[in-house]
Amino acid sequence: MSDHKGFTLWFTGLSGAGKSTLAQYLIPMFTEMGCLVECLDGDEVRENLSKGLGFSKEDRDTNIRRIGYVANMLSRNGVIAITAAISPYAAIRDEMRGNCKAHFVEVYVEAPLEVVEARDTKGLYKKARAGIIKQFTGISDPYEAPEKAEVTVHTGDQSIEESAQKVLDYLHEKGLIPARQVQKA
Amino acid sequence: MSDHKGFTLWFTGLSGAGKSTLAQYLIPMFTEMGCLVECLDGDEVRENLSKGLGFSKEDRDTNIRRIGYVANMLSRNGVIAITAAISPYAAIRDEMRGNCKAHFVEVYVEAPLEVVEARDTKGLYKKARAGIIKQFTGISDPYEAPEKAEVTVHTGDQSIEESAQKVLDYLHEKGLIPARQVQKA
Repeated sequence: MSDHKGFTLWFTGLSGAGKSTLAQYLIPMFTEMGCLVECLDGDEVRENLSKGLGFSKEDRDTNIRRIGYVANMLSRNGVIAITAAISPYAAIRDEMRGNCKAHFVEVYVEAPLEVVEARDTKGLYKKARAGIIKQFTGISDPYEAPEKAEVTVHTGDQSIEESAQKVLDYLHEKGLIPARQVQKA
Repeated sequence: MSDHKGFTLWFTGLSGAGKSTLAQYLIPMFTEMGCLVECLDGDEVRENLSKGLGFSKEDRDTNIRRIGYVANMLSRNGVIAITAAISPYAAIRDEMRGNCKAHFVEVYVEAPLEVVEARDTKGLYKKARAGIIKQFTGISDPYEAPEKAEVTVHTGDQSIEESAQKVLDYLHEKGLIPARQVQKA
């Protein structure tokens, strides 16, 4: 059983910015530190908690509230709850921050639209541009960038290792993760 | 931080049988033992995870799958996850048991329909009999009693203390909760 405190690590950013990639990169690192960790990924949550919801503002907000509800429950019980949904609206992210009984760390996974659209990992931007997908964040739906995120990473010109290190540095500085040997490049 | 193992304590039974009452009675006892505990109550979950879902078999199953998804996540991280939804269908309860990575303890909170209907704590049975509420478990919708529940309590003729003790005895016997001084009546 871990002796660290739980917290919520709330990733926000455009589709393809690298939220899930960063989460998946960090998870084994947290585990190695002896931390408990769960990831509430956008796609997985839509399948397990929000099937039937669409992408209107109201449905997106409902989806985010469900993620926040579960993340709060996990983190107040000592788990690192990582959320990796686009979560485009600032007001609802702030609501989740306010509800969270444990530490809430917002991580803005920033990448310019040109960059994520060029990546187009899942082929979604092409479909959004063609109008096949409606209400697509960044194309036909707003994305409200955080103004006071605890950590901002720029995946357009930072490597995954650099982005992860920036998150870890913040968490370490705040005493949220155990001290560890950091091997500097 | 607690050193006990998490498990799911899945209550099932008719509306008014005493699932939430029993859960609320047990929670401070678990807390005093140094255990982490969360309760996924039927009404609260409908508000936070399942708003918009109705009471068709499909919607009920979706609701129960969401509860099971969260309970599994909590219990595999060392939390006692108590669920207190009617969960009338045996197949979906068994599915949740199969999905659960931690111990899964099904508690059948049994009380005869006559008893819960006479109690009618929330006035729901009266509305169900009058046809104001449709698809009401026990009246106009089925309840499939568990055949192999780990614990069965009969709240029609057992006190809340007796029912709680029966649950605690089982958990203690299985080593799921720490040893404690049990004061026999």
